[in-house]
Amino acid sequence: MRLNMSATTASITETCKDLRDRVNARLEKYVEQAPGVPPRLREAMAYSLLAGGKRLRPILVLLACEACGGEVEAALPAACALEMIHTYSLVHDDLPAMDNDDLRRGRPTNHVVYGEGMAILAGDGLLTLAFEVLARDIQPAAVAAACCADLAQAAGMAGMVGGQVADLEAEGRTVSTLEELEGIHRRKTGALLASSLTLGARVAQASSDDLERLGHYGRALGLAFQITDDLLDVCGCTQNMGKAVNKDASRGKLTYPVLLGEEASRLRANCQIAEACKWIEPFGERGRRLDSLAHFVLERDH
Amino acid sequence: MRLNMSATTASITETCKDLRDRVNARLEKYVEQAPGVPPRLREAMAYSLLAGGKRLRPILVLLACEACGGEVEAALPAACALEMIHTYSLVHDDLPAMDNDDLRRGRPTNHVVYGEGMAILAGDGLLTLAFEVLARDIQPAAVAAACCADLAQAAGMAGMVGGQVADLEAEGRTVSTLEELEGIHRRKTGALLASSLTLGARVAQASSDDLERLGHYGRALGLAFQITDDLLDVCGCTQNMGKAVNKDASRGKLTYPVLLGEEASRLRANCQIAEACKWIEPFGERGRRLDSLAHFVLERDH
Repeated sequence: MRLNMSATTASITETCKDLRDRVNARLEKYVEQAPGVPPRLREAMAYSLLAGGKRLRPILVLLACEACGGEVEAALPAACALEMIHTYSLVHDDLPAMDNDDLRRGRPTNHVVYGEGMAILAGDGLLTLAFEVLARDIQPAAVAAACCADLAQAAGMAGMVGGQVADLEAEGRTVSTLEELEGIHRRKTGALLASSLTLGARVAQASSDDLERLGHYGRALGLAFQITDDLLDVCGCTQNMGKAVNKDASRGKLTYPVLLGEEASRLRANCQIAEACKWIEPFGERGRRLDSLAHFVLERDH
Repeated sequence: MRLNMSATTASITETCKDLRDRVNARLEKYVEQAPGVPPRLREAMAYSLLAGGKRLRPILVLLACEACGGEVEAALPAACALEMIHTYSLVHDDLPAMDNDDLRRGRPTNHVVYGEGMAILAGDGLLTLAFEVLARDIQPAAVAAACCADLAQAAGMAGMVGGQVADLEAEGRTVSTLEELEGIHRRKTGALLASSLTLGARVAQASSDDLERLGHYGRALGLAFQITDDLLDVCGCTQNMGKAVNKDASRGKLTYPVLLGEEASRLRANCQIAEACKWIEPFGERGRRLDSLAHFVLERDH
């Protein structure tokens, strides 16, 4: 079992690297080649967008497209759009008025390098570019419109932005429930992860049943990812994480380890991954890489 | 001539009021009725979105749709999307890290009431909602996708956001040219105004010739609008404007009156309006209200 798992891990690691390279090349093109952009703005957008990172959301877009029988190439604009939304949210979250973080992906945060005003505008530019890329480069147009609507709903006031507000409002409070915590994460991380899957599926023109299955997979994976993120904030080291650790606890932020303890948190992450994998069983061999990715999330150390 | 102009002004004032009422009712619905939004976020978004305002961009969307033979009702989602983008840009521009304004539309700015973090998120929510509304509510889907692509390009890094960056970078510099100033405004105000017209035309499924004509009209109107805005900052009073006046000059911001003087600025605004009206002559009677609106921009006192 251990050997099998390691073999799977090696294989999914390679898959992720290949897909990440394709996504990075396309992201670079989108931000570097557009005409008429003030140089300093382009630099600030590229600084955060091309800073590396796991590219989990774009990889999910591409694997979901593959699982539904589509071409990876056709889903690349959607993969890039997801990463643009994710990056803009990090740039804005790091601002002094929000989480006030100085370090991200091992480098000074955007506002530390470019100033707050430019960081706000770079985030706005990335958020807007996500929809430009989706609307212009996804074919056919009806799929592009559906992708824009999905992504906007997941990223917006009832999704990611709403989750960020709920998260801010929960800071510093001493008691809370698992239900409340998961409600925040469902919106803050889960909605965007789930939309990564549904966008990939939409590009492959998947059935509504497959869309729904992948949405469930994405939501369960999102919670597992958040739990492992919280655990890494407690157990990880700054070097591996590329950002400050133990920061959540120091500002009284509600996390899984704080609420449940480390062991129960790990167990809960395991359960979510089992749940995620159940939803992609019907995809058989085509869903194999999504299955491997789910297990990989549990084992990651950064 | 003077009597004619006044009659036209009265009529376009009524038209604008009717259209504004329809836009306001729809905007209220979009922001008040969406489920799953944290109450404080909804309040912050509604505070700025439903604060009144001229609704120039939505009105342009609706009149462009009418000029191309379309139904005003069908263009309402696009009209609302334009106002959401405009409002988000005001909320972010007013932040301490940007223009640091305390007063907008006669009320304390968003961050003064809700705090900087919430104002950033309310802006992000409005920007995202614009694309959700466009992608979901404009029919057919191919037109929705084209509208999303147009709006994102106009509002993004090579359009409005890029213009805002250029504007920030030009602050405090002592010399500059008309060419540079108009380059900034073409992006900062003109691109979004021009896209108001093209989105309305797209909803009416206008010909590419008509799209182009309305784009020219929008760009010329946008420059005229910016000039009159600059003039009102010098000559207007705080009560009529609902925001601080003489602020541009006090922070060394480059404006038309500073660069050209008041008289030449007025002349330039007149020329732009004449240019705008030339582009809608081919629309005949259907373009009449766009013609009246252009003249109205010259006469406004707030």
